[in-house]
Amino acid sequence: MREALAHERAALEVFATVDATDQHTDLVEAARRHEVPWHVVTDDVVEAMTDTVQPQGVIARCAMLDRPLEALLDRSPTFLVVCADVRDPGNAGAVIRCADAAGAEGVVFVGDSVDPFNPKSVRATVGSIFHLPIAVSRDIPGSLAAVQQAGMAVLAADGKGDVGLFDDGLDLSAPTAWLMGNEAWGLPDEVSALADSIVAVPIFGRAESLNLATAAAVCLYASARARNSH
Amino acid sequence: MREALAHERAALEVFATVDATDQHTDLVEAARRHEVPWHVVTDDVVEAMTDTVQPQGVIARCAMLDRPLEALLDRSPTFLVVCADVRDPGNAGAVIRCADAAGAEGVVFVGDSVDPFNPKSVRATVGSIFHLPIAVSRDIPGSLAAVQQAGMAVLAADGKGDVGLFDDGLDLSAPTAWLMGNEAWGLPDEVSALADSIVAVPIFGRAESLNLATAAAVCLYASARARNSH
Repeated sequence: MREALAHERAALEVFATVDATDQHTDLVEAARRHEVPWHVVTDDVVEAMTDTVQPQGVIARCAMLDRPLEALLDRSPTFLVVCADVRDPGNAGAVIRCADAAGAEGVVFVGDSVDPFNPKSVRATVGSIFHLPIAVSRDIPGSLAAVQQAGMAVLAADGKGDVGLFDDGLDLSAPTAWLMGNEAWGLPDEVSALADSIVAVPIFGRAESLNLATAAAVCLYASARARNSH
Repeated sequence: MREALAHERAALEVFATVDATDQHTDLVEAARRHEVPWHVVTDDVVEAMTDTVQPQGVIARCAMLDRPLEALLDRSPTFLVVCADVRDPGNAGAVIRCADAAGAEGVVFVGDSVDPFNPKSVRATVGSIFHLPIAVSRDIPGSLAAVQQAGMAVLAADGKGDVGLFDDGLDLSAPTAWLMGNEAWGLPDEVSALADSIVAVPIFGRAESLNLATAAAVCLYASARARNSH
């Protein structure tokens, strides 16, 4: 809520119960400052507006914040995450939160991915959905080509990759877009083939793989570490 | 299933439908080799035995595999994960999977943690629950003291930590037990105070924190990298 009010043009209007309005004077003040209308409503209105089991009494109606990939690339980013065919909203949200923590400059959802503005995804981002630009495009080859055209190497994260994440040859301080695949089947070969490198998170024990969010965390933090070690 | 049959003493007996028995001849053979009884039953028996929505037709009844912390420490591990008050079974399973992938030698659940053998947790480990020893103990101070006594430094993962995960001063190639806190409130101060160091995963963007599984992934892989870079 605080994040939505602080983000330019995110919150359009707020609906809150009497109790919540009394309790969150800081939010009322923030809404006033950003000229966001604040409507005091009854408890059952708030309940009807949300799908959470125990609503907190305050709801912001927000603008859809995705932007065209071109607009995102116009900012000359050097560290992006591209999710291909990611289906679970919790995973999508966790990857956005991770991308924000690692200092990435945007997240792009391509192919047949879940809507990152799905309420479950938004909740899993814990506010990060307002922190970095999100783009959505169905076109996988076109999007990857545009990212490469913008100067980033596309690194496909795949356990079958021929380069190890911690190999000396991999320069993660260079402009990079991490390409993450579906939670169940990963990246199809024809998508991996579009990447500049296929990079494997090394497995030191006997697990077959990591799940999507933890694999993204390890890859993004390897990049963050390389980018911030100068 | 394959993992349970391969693990010494894990699978006690198998219940399978006619179709599943016909389909999984490799499992039938593995069960025979390990002298695990294989019972062919009707579909409704399998359905009644499981809480998954679409059971796969084969169920192994397994022994509880947790062991006393002392028995785990008798193996002289130098890389452990300790989860304090972790409540969500999906998170517990994800941490076990991560620990396995990073080459940790065991996972210890202390305090008021979820049962790591909860079906949801077991499924989230994707087989890793059979790959490394799991210990459970309610006693947090006693467990941490035993881990320290066994020669490992206890590193508490906490965003408020005074040492950064990538700081030069932190020697992650030394024997280490990572202490992870509850998914909502992290580690209480009195628990962090028992650790040898409190270590923060650096945040490079504007996220407040990482979720439990992704924080564990970043910490465990920082250790794995240091331990395997010689």
